[in-house]
Order: sequence, then structure tokens, then C-alpha cells
Amino acid sequence: MKILFIGDIVGQPGRQALQQQLSQLKRQHRADLTIVNGENAAHGKGITKKIYHQILEWGADIVTLGNHAWDKREIFDFIDETETLVRPANFPEGTPGKGMQFVNVGKTKVAVINAQGRTFMNPIDDPFTVVDGLMEQARKQADIIFVDFHAEATSEKQAMGWYLDGRASAVVGTHTHIQTSDNRILPNRTAYITDVGMTGPYNSILGVDKDAVIRKFKTGLPVKFDVPETDQTVLSGVVVDVDSKTGQANRIDRILVNDDHMNFE
Amino acid sequence: MKILFIGDIVGQPGRQALQQQLSQLKRQHRADLTIVNGENAAHGKGITKKIYHQILEWGADIVTLGNHAWDKREIFDFIDETETLVRPANFPEGTPGKGMQFVNVGKTKVAVINAQGRTFMNPIDDPFTVVDGLMEQARKQADIIFVDFHAEATSEKQAMGWYLDGRASAVVGTHTHIQTSDNRILPNRTAYITDVGMTGPYNSILGVDKDAVIRKFKTGLPVKFDVPETDQTVLSGVVVDVDSKTGQANRIDRILVNDDHMNFE
Amino acid sequence: MKILFIGDIVGQPGRQALQQQLSQLKRQHRADLTIVNGENAAHGKGITKKIYHQILEWGADIVTLGNHAWDKREIFDFIDETETLVRPANFPEGTPGKGMQFVNVGKTKVAVINAQGRTFMNPIDDPFTVVDGLMEQARKQADIIFVDFHAEATSEKQAMGWYLDGRASAVVGTHTHIQTSDNRILPNRTAYITDVGMTGPYNSILGVDKDAVIRKFKTGLPVKFDVPETDQTVLSGVVVDVDSKTGQANRIDRILVNDDHMNFE
Amino acid sequence: MKILFIGDIVGQPGRQALQQQLSQLKRQHRADLTIVNGENAAHGKGITKKIYHQILEWGADIVTLGNHAWDKREIFDFIDETETLVRPANFPEGTPGKGMQFVNVGKTKVAVINAQGRTFMNPIDDPFTVVDGLMEQARKQADIIFVDFHAEATSEKQAMGWYLDGRASAVVGTHTHIQTSDNRILPNRTAYITDVGMTGPYNSILGVDKDAVIRKFKTGLPVKFDVPETDQTVLSGVVVDVDSKTGQANRIDRILVNDDHMNFE
Ligand SMILES: [Fe+2]
Ligand SMILES: [Fe+2]
Ligand SMILES: [Fe+2]
Ligand SMILES: [Fe+2]
Ligand SMILES: [Fe+2]
Ligand SMILES: [Fe+2]
Ligand SMILES: [Fe+2]
Ligand SMILES: [Fe+2]
Repeated sequence: MKILFIGDIVGQPGRQALQQQLSQLKRQHRADLTIVNGENAAHGKGITKKIYHQILEWGADIVTLGNHAWDKREIFDFIDETETLVRPANFPEGTPGKGMQFVNVGKTKVAVINAQGRTFMNPIDDPFTVVDGLMEQARKQADIIFVDFHAEATSEKQAMGWYLDGRASAVVGTHTHIQTSDNRILPNRTAYITDVGMTGPYNSILGVDKDAVIRKFKTGLPVKFDVPETDQTVLSGVVVDVDSKTGQANRIDRILVNDDHMNFE
Repeated sequence: MKILFIGDIVGQPGRQALQQQLSQLKRQHRADLTIVNGENAAHGKGITKKIYHQILEWGADIVTLGNHAWDKREIFDFIDETETLVRPANFPEGTPGKGMQFVNVGKTKVAVINAQGRTFMNPIDDPFTVVDGLMEQARKQADIIFVDFHAEATSEKQAMGWYLDGRASAVVGTHTHIQTSDNRILPNRTAYITDVGMTGPYNSILGVDKDAVIRKFKTGLPVKFDVPETDQTVLSGVVVDVDSKTGQANRIDRILVNDDHMNFE
Repeated sequence: MKILFIGDIVGQPGRQALQQQLSQLKRQHRADLTIVNGENAAHGKGITKKIYHQILEWGADIVTLGNHAWDKREIFDFIDETETLVRPANFPEGTPGKGMQFVNVGKTKVAVINAQGRTFMNPIDDPFTVVDGLMEQARKQADIIFVDFHAEATSEKQAMGWYLDGRASAVVGTHTHIQTSDNRILPNRTAYITDVGMTGPYNSILGVDKDAVIRKFKTGLPVKFDVPETDQTVLSGVVVDVDSKTGQANRIDRILVNDDHMNFE
Repeated sequence: MKILFIGDIVGQPGRQALQQQLSQLKRQHRADLTIVNGENAAHGKGITKKIYHQILEWGADIVTLGNHAWDKREIFDFIDETETLVRPANFPEGTPGKGMQFVNVGKTKVAVINAQGRTFMNPIDDPFTVVDGLMEQARKQADIIFVDFHAEATSEKQAMGWYLDGRASAVVGTHTHIQTSDNRILPNRTAYITDVGMTGPYNSILGVDKDAVIRKFKTGLPVKFDVPETDQTVLSGVVVDVDSKTGQANRIDRILVNDDHMNFE
């Protein structure tokens, strides 16, 4: 089975890139399942019900989130009705939404997990322990387990990859918005990449107006961070090829589409 | 001019990979100048005089550092005698060593700058302001300015890239130990990559024994971090092609050598 | 000379406590000079022109700030016209406003300095180096130097106290909003306290609605932080007795006025 | 019942102050139960078996810990044999030692809980949730519940105080090493103070050699932190008067003994 994962959609340019390119990407990579991280889809912060449904219409099967999940308050109104929206699993008990969702692809059942790191981020529950619990649950029902680990520190992400090696089909990182080149199949056949990268304005800083970010660093004063309006976009993703019977990954390939890289590596 | 830059050498496996591969890499990429980040060369933390000289013998022209520069105390004994060792420039005035060194490559003079980020790192002087000052100095003497920006946050690194676009020939990131795939030539002809990645044990977490790091995350207890002894290594680098006359970059290509990627992308 | 310093005024309850109590406190403690930290005076975040002038009308001679200085954007419109408003001195060159102001008290000239810490706070310029420079300037013109060091970490605050011992007449900490009991005269006659404490709602968490803060800690979700409306307030301050001729401090006494402590200790 | 709590013992000077003063303090304050935080008792970092037993011999009934609990590795050898040593309860399941211990004082049973904050500290389990669970357990067996909340941020500590108001007899903060002056009885009769303060070298920075700490802040370079040898000490504590029948606190008074304050306030 081919699983296409697209990294953090940032604002209108990110949504536009997704809308314009997703169906072709799915064809090109023969994707059986498409997962999109949408934590920054609404103006760079959070997601609305409307945008969530748009992402599904454009071709996603599952939408994952991250630390920005809650930035648009309306999420609390609709997250509990969804079956294809996954928020970080290691928020405390009682948090709206789910940290794992199941999706059927033909006869294969896929569990999609979202978890959030703690290093250089807000302290929530331990992602390693929480994912342990979910793995056990998932293993009983699902053939394939796909983990979007939304974290800042490369150490924490690599740790999660190695920790789940042989237990998850894929562990892909999100949150830093820059794609890494370390995609690999770990020894026990888990596909891994530290960060998939973002989908949004190309000539920006993590999707935000670059002059604003530079001014922030230079002055230390409060600066408003806007997603610039632009047609020059970057789309970042990976395609993971998983054996549906064993749940073991065969390949993980990077996708990076921008003005400099028009094609699949 | 072709500048070869090799990312953070970690411990004995990193040194071994460098020793075994550097001369061939230089030939293969026709490197005119070779820069190596050595902040983790001695057991993962800092650098000794002996190791510094070894790195030069194996073919480096300049060694850059980072936040671990000071971990082996003997650096204070020899750093002021060196002309090819560069520590982060934005340590306060009076800090031993230099944040910029010049090297002649034929008739071309190259300034090599090392600076350190502050986001998620110790607070030192503002790297943007300090680098501004160095750029002015460098521009008077050097044809090419190469910047190793040692920082954690992708935002701060991208900000530095854009900030120096058109002023530096190259801004390459180090410190996260994971190579990113966003190498590009910015609009004003500065070569940029968020992180070059590390050189050391391949099946590790940032060069450190992976079980120890996972235990640290799982238990919260103090854990000793050792660089594992292994022959399976990763070597990470970039080659930047710069026009010696204009100082403008033409290309930046990634190098990633490990058991999965044996070749130049 | 008696210098009265009142800690961070938080929102409407803080302003009310100040308005109602300041003139009496000045009489009671025979204050010759009154300094008030106003960084949270406007709804807990920043200060407006109107509120700044109110604080002066109620009896303050100088208003100091902190990391929240910039939260109400209108400060950029009036800060450069003021002579009795002091923002943290160690923001980068070019920042509006001043980090030191002078005030005449009879024939005695007092320099009032505001500086901001970096540990657990945003990275700005080194407060130790910046204050060094200001001390030199101040010493030429002023008889007394009063420092409001706005910082989080007790280590950084104690370090500043010891660093300036014998050079400043007083180093008083602000920012944590909780008064410490370590007021003392350091060996070289600098008055010191780690934190003066805040002035605002008493039954709150640092001046903020306590249920909101607890919910934030319990859920990890975004929570709106409001300053509760209440008549039950705490007012925190210190009185420093300084020899006007030598600039040396004789005493530093705490003031804490709330429903539990109605009097001067 | 009178409960005497002494804040973080730092190194040899802290142990000496405790040894010399504890029996007199107990008499003076008619202490029925004595609790001592010992996380820095061994050279400023951690505790040894020998020192733990000394603290008991000098008069403590219970020793609490904090983030430095694990710094001397031998703790792992003896912590599980102890019944009067309490480590932060919110380390993950499986951590050696206990986060709550019970002690009988006449016919009254007292539960002593130690928990650790997360703001500006390492991410471990949520202290609010973990303490919730312990409160339930404690309520069934104990008449009095005493909580040492070892945390950095004043907000997190105040939050814990208000959170446990009416459920714990006392919530006292430790870790910042500076005593606060906000001791109070909360509306539902829980005794509270943000930080009790430390016991160790008086003319120091948090118990550490002050020149070393200043050098660290000024240079950004690695500095060795030693506890200075000195006879000039500070001892910090509180006495909490609790109604043994209801578990409700009547009073909480600060103790601060140093060259400037020789007596009980
Ligand atoms: Fe994101
Ligand atoms: Fe994120
Ligand atoms: Fe490194
Ligand atoms: Fe580093
Ligand atoms: Fe404040
Ligand atoms: Fe503040
Ligand atoms: Fe401590
Ligand atoms: Fe501590």
C-alpha cells in the first residue's frame, strides 16, 4: 500500500498548493491513502470546520494536527463529530477529539496516530508512554500503523522513530516546517523521516512573512506574524510503501515541489 | 570555486568517517576549500588540540565550532594560537578565539564566519547584529563569505539565510545533526541549507547511543550519553559552487553517505 | 533619602490599590522619591499613555517597565516624549524609549535604570554588560543609582545584585509577581531584594484569574487570561533608605498590604 | 500540630546550619513533625545515604527531594529501602522511591507528598493530575496532608496552592532557593508559601559561589559551580500550625536565620 503524507498546510497559499497538486500527486504516486497535516491551515494557526472539509474534498483521507490544533476555537465545536481528524494523543485525558483514528483501505485497516513532543514545547503527557498504549490498541485492530510525530527537537523525533521501529509502519515528523533528507527504512522495517516539511509560501520563514520574522529576531519587540499572499509555494510530503500483510515498510520517498525542485526525488 | 562543508563530526566514528572519506570526497567534488564543523569531535563534546590537527591533516582547511566549543577545557589553551579554527562570533567581547577567519584559495580570499543561535539555546549576543558587523569587515577583505550558523530553531536559521541573502555567498546551518533537504540558491544568490547534518554513528540518535536517549525521554532520570563505537557511519555535507569574482553562489548540493545512501544526490 | 518602590501594577485592581494607597504610603514612609513598575498596568499587559499619566498623578515620579512594555502598541507613540518612563535598557540599539532616566530630588540626582533578564525569557542583549555601561554614565551625573531588574530566575537576579554591590544604591527585582523575604543590605552597601512583588488582585495567580491559570496547567489548551475584577488587592513594595551623599543604602524594608497583612513589616 | 519545614539544604554549609540549629528550632517552635528538603545536601547536587541518615539524626522526620534527587547515583541503591524519603511523585511509573510517605505523630497520621513543576523544568508527568490521585489515596489514611511542591515558576506554584486549597493542610514551595514573603492561609484553610527558601551559604547565589555564577552570566562559557565553604549561613523554613482533627491550617510563619535576621519573624 502506498501512503501519501503531506506536511503542515500553512494558510491560503498552502491550501492552494494542496488543492492544485493533490489529485495529480495521488495519481503519480499511486496513493492508496492520503494523510495531510492541517494544524496551520487557517491563516497559519489552527483549522476551521470549513477548511477541514475542503482538505478532505481535495483528496485527503485523514487530517492530522499538532500544537496549533486549538488555535481556532471552533475546533472544540466539531472535533468530536469527526472520524478523520486526529489531534495529538498525549494531551491529558478528557481533551476533545482523538489521538488515533482508523481508516479502511480496501480490506486493510490503517491506524493513524498523532503525538506531540515536549522538548522545547509545552509540557503535556509523555508521548512515548501514550503511544505505547495506542500501539497496543492499534495492533489488535489495524494492519498498518502510521504515526505523525509533531515535535521540535531532532533528538526526540529520532528517539520516537527508533522506539517504534518494528512496531509502527511509519513514523514521520512534522512541526519544524523544513523537510529533512534522512528518510530511511529502520532495521526493523519502520519508515522514518525527521520532518516532512511544510506546504505553503516558498519565500517565507516557516510560512510566515520573512521580514516580520527577521524584525522579531533583530528587535525583540512584538511583531505580527502573517502568512504572505503568494503563488510561489512549496509542497512537502513523503510516500511510504508498506506491505499490507506484514505492516512492514518497503520504501519512503520524499516529495518536494517548489520553484527550484519541480519533481519527485 | 567549490567549497566542501562537512557537518558536525561526532566522536571516534565521526572522525573515522572523515579520515576515510574526505580525500576522495574532495577529489570527487573538486573542492577548492574544505570546512569541517568539529564541535563534537572529541567524544561528542568539544574538541582537543590533537583532534583539531588531525582534522586538518585529513584535509580540512578550516574547522568551525558551536555551542559545544568549550566542552574540552584545553581549547582555552590553544584556540588563540590557531588561524583556522572559528568559534561562534557572538560570544561576548573578550571570549578567546575568533568568530571569523580568512583563508586564501589561490588568489581568492574567503572569510569563514561561525555564529550561534539563541532560540532554545543559551542567551549570548545577538547573532544578527554581530554578523552584520563581521559582514562589513569581511566585505573589505574577502571575495567570498561563508557562514556556518549553528542554531536549533528552523525559524532562526531561515531568518539568517534571508537576512544575509545577497551579502554572504553561503549560509549553512549546523547543530540539529539532521540534514535538511531545503538546499537552495536564494534570490540574491546566497546558497542556503537549514542544516547540513552530522558525521558520526549512523544508527544512533544525533550521534549518541540510542537506548540511552530513549531511556532519558522515558524516565526523566539522568542518563550518561555516550557515542557508540561502530563502523556504520553517516557523513553529511554540502558542496557550494561560488563565483569567485562576484561571490555569488551558483549551486549548493547535498552529500549524504551512509549504508542507505552511498552516493552524492 | 527614602525611595519608595511599588511592584508591578496589574490591571484595574492594581491601579485602584495604587490610587487609594499611594499618597498615604508616601507620607507614612516619608518617601522622597516614588518609583512604580507599570508593565502590567493596562489589563495586565503593557501600559497606555492615559494610565502612565494617571500613575504619575497618583504620586509616582518614575514608572519602570519590563517584558510587557510593548504589549499595548500605543507605547511606541509616546515613549520617546517621556522623561519619567524607563524601559528595559538591554533591548537592542534603536529601540524606542530609554533604559535610564534621571530625576532630581532636591539637590540630589537619581538615576533610575530598568533592565531585563534572559534566563527563561526572550533573548535580548546581555543585561550585565549593558548595565555596566549605564553605571559608568550614571556615576558621572547621579548621586544615587536605582536599578529595577526585571527577571525570572532567582539566580540571575541575585547575580545582578552581587554584581552591582557597591556600585548601585539599590537593585530590586520585579517580574515574578511574588514578594521575596530576602531584602538585605549587601556588604558594599547596596540594597537588594530578589522580587518586590506585584500590586493587583489578591486572590489570583500573579494577578490573573486563578481558575483560568489552573485550567491552563491541567489541560494544556489555550486559555484566555483575564485580570479579575475585585476590591481585594495586594500592594507590594519596598522602601530604601539611601545616604544621599555617599549613595550607600542604610536599609531596605518590605511593604505588603493585603487582607492578611495590613501593615508595614 | 506544629510542622516545621526546612528548605533545600545546600552542601556542607547547609548541613552544618541544620545540625547546629535544628534541635533548638524544634524546641522554640514546639515542632511535632520536622520535614527537610535535602535535594542539594551533597555538594549542592543530590543526596547520599550517609547524609540522608545524618539529616534524620539531627532531627528530621522526613526528607523531601526535587529535580536534583538523582544527581548522586547511589540514591538508586537505597531509596527503595527508605520510609522517610520522598521524591517527586510525578516521575513516570516505575521510578524508584515514593512520591508520598506516611508518618505517625502520636495518633495523627500525616501524608507527606513531594511533586515537581514543569514550567522552565524538564517535562515529566503532570503534577496536578498526579497529586490529585495521591490526595485521594492520602485522604483515606491520613489526617493531615503536607505537600512540598518543587517548582520554578511562581505561576505554577500559586496554581498548585489554589488547586489544593481545602484539600491539603499545607502547600509549600521549594526550588528557587529564595524565601518569599507571601505565606498565608488560603480561604479554605490550606497554608501556602511560594518558596520556603534554602539553607546554606549566605553570601552566595542560590548556594553556589557567586563569582562563578556571575562569570557564567557574563561569559556564556562553561563554569564549575561549587558550594563555597563558609560559616556564614542562611537557614530558611516555615512553621505550619495545623488542627490535627480537621487537617485545617491555622497559621504559617516564616523562619529566616542569617547574619541579618537572627530571629523568627
Ligand atoms: Fe506546523
Ligand atoms: Fe507545530
Ligand atoms: Fe553538533
Ligand atoms: Fe551544537
Ligand atoms: Fe509583571
Ligand atoms: Fe514581567
Ligand atoms: Fe534546591
Ligand atoms: Fe531544585
